[in-house]
Amino acid sequence: MGSVPQPASGIFEGQCHLFPVRVYYEDTDLSGIVYHANYLKFCERARSDLLRVLGIDQRAAFEAGEGTYAVADAHIRWVLPARLDDSLVVQTSLAELRSASVRLVQRVVRGEELLVELAIRVGFIAPNGRPRRQPDAWRHAFDAFYKKDTA
Amino acid sequence: MGSVPQPASGIFEGQCHLFPVRVYYEDTDLSGIVYHANYLKFCERARSDLLRVLGIDQRAAFEAGEGTYAVADAHIRWVLPARLDDSLVVQTSLAELRSASVRLVQRVVRGEELLVELAIRVGFIAPNGRPRRQPDAWRHAFDAFYKKDTA
Amino acid sequence: MGSVPQPASGIFEGQCHLFPVRVYYEDTDLSGIVYHANYLKFCERARSDLLRVLGIDQRAAFEAGEGTYAVADAHIRWVLPARLDDSLVVQTSLAELRSASVRLVQRVVRGEELLVELAIRVGFIAPNGRPRRQPDAWRHAFDAFYKKDTA
Amino acid sequence: MGSVPQPASGIFEGQCHLFPVRVYYEDTDLSGIVYHANYLKFCERARSDLLRVLGIDQRAAFEAGEGTYAVADAHIRWVLPARLDDSLVVQTSLAELRSASVRLVQRVVRGEELLVELAIRVGFIAPNGRPRRQPDAWRHAFDAFYKKDTA
Repeated sequence: MGSVPQPASGIFEGQCHLFPVRVYYEDTDLSGIVYHANYLKFCERARSDLLRVLGIDQRAAFEAGEGTYAVADAHIRWVLPARLDDSLVVQTSLAELRSASVRLVQRVVRGEELLVELAIRVGFIAPNGRPRRQPDAWRHAFDAFYKKDTA
Repeated sequence: MGSVPQPASGIFEGQCHLFPVRVYYEDTDLSGIVYHANYLKFCERARSDLLRVLGIDQRAAFEAGEGTYAVADAHIRWVLPARLDDSLVVQTSLAELRSASVRLVQRVVRGEELLVELAIRVGFIAPNGRPRRQPDAWRHAFDAFYKKDTA
Repeated sequence: MGSVPQPASGIFEGQCHLFPVRVYYEDTDLSGIVYHANYLKFCERARSDLLRVLGIDQRAAFEAGEGTYAVADAHIRWVLPARLDDSLVVQTSLAELRSASVRLVQRVVRGEELLVELAIRVGFIAPNGRPRRQPDAWRHAFDAFYKKDTA
Repeated sequence: MGSVPQPASGIFEGQCHLFPVRVYYEDTDLSGIVYHANYLKFCERARSDLLRVLGIDQRAAFEAGEGTYAVADAHIRWVLPARLDDSLVVQTSLAELRSASVRLVQRVVRGEELLVELAIRVGFIAPNGRPRRQPDAWRHAFDAFYKKDTA
């Protein structure tokens, strides 16, 4: 059935991955704006989408016991609030690619306005919780993304 | 900038509203499947999208002090679990339209599989929490949706 | 260090398990009240606490591959809203104990006021997702709870 | 009815506020550990409890149109994961008190283990979103807390 709608997917614009997010009731709190922790969810959705667009299958890797990404540290600035029904975009850029971790910069924007800025480091970890080298295919995928328009 | 991706939006197929949902880490729990309460969030996103597609501006009505919808009761069956990265569709049908409330049937599906079925009644309430007639324009919008292909 | 505070734990009052919940920002939405789906979280916390108080170790059972509870169906009525800082109690009563499932009635109250009523059936499932008999020790624990003051 | 259980409340130990948190299903994700963003919720609960224990009524201030706290920026390190049923404590210390903002250091621990460390700045904002001096009574309450055992 060709008419079934698909979930939003991000796109690359040069070295930046753009992912759309709509604000729903569940995201807001009584002060009328998006609850601060929920921007971390929006950014995680964008990172998962980025992996999917790069052809990386997180779920298969997890189910095969290879490992998963875990967030190691982050710096966040909440600059302006988002509100119900807002249409946001998460912009994700690669800051550093290492063997067992990745540093990304993510910006949540509404049109021209910067709402939230996140600098985050995620490490790849084995099922036992220890750091592990990312699968080669994943690093190559990131590498290709990073070098996309710097040639 | 024409290349900015947009959040997913639902479509009507006859009298049924179809809304896509992707499963992210935030939706799952340690049993590896979507946490049961989160299907209520998926269904609420679909209802908000349905209103938006019908031209109803919930946020403006709320900010103008007209009122908002509040869930009154629901019956839910969890039939099959959803997993990370699944692409789901929420199918929403109108079951009954009254002056101050609406009954809907919502089904969360993955392809041909029924995952969750929800029969829900939402009432329109004034800022003081009392039931209130829905704005006429909203009832007309629902009415048009309900009668869409029964002519 | 004896002064470390402990998380809230429920108590039995006859055949009813009472579990306290405080409402935080994360629980509310922009309409100023608790988001409807979050009462399902409060009720799940109460069920997990009930198991803990009965001496049942869900995490050990899950990690040992024995299985876990999964919600099968529920009927919910949202009667009155809860607000920030409210001190709530979830009252849980056993309605029916079967070999592979349990039916419970849960009421979220604020003092004398009934806010939400939930009738829920949870089934025990094996790691492959199939229904499985609950561990005998669990059924005996439930059984003892059910018969507590009917002698 | 004296037997109704109360939600957990934090205590002061010198200049440190200790607040207990239990890990429930809702907090975990499919990797079996607490979803990274949820530690921000635990820390927010602790801050709200700290205000309550200091005698500050956030909800009354919000409803009276005085204003509310909004998170401005944070640095977070996720050191060790928490798991289902874990009994955690959030330790909160005041780092700096200014007229319109507060900087806090919060540590989520499990016994002797540090799980997550958060340095966070929250600003007081008027209903229009602009920074505003905190109510004097609040600053005095913080001030008393800060100086508690440094005399």
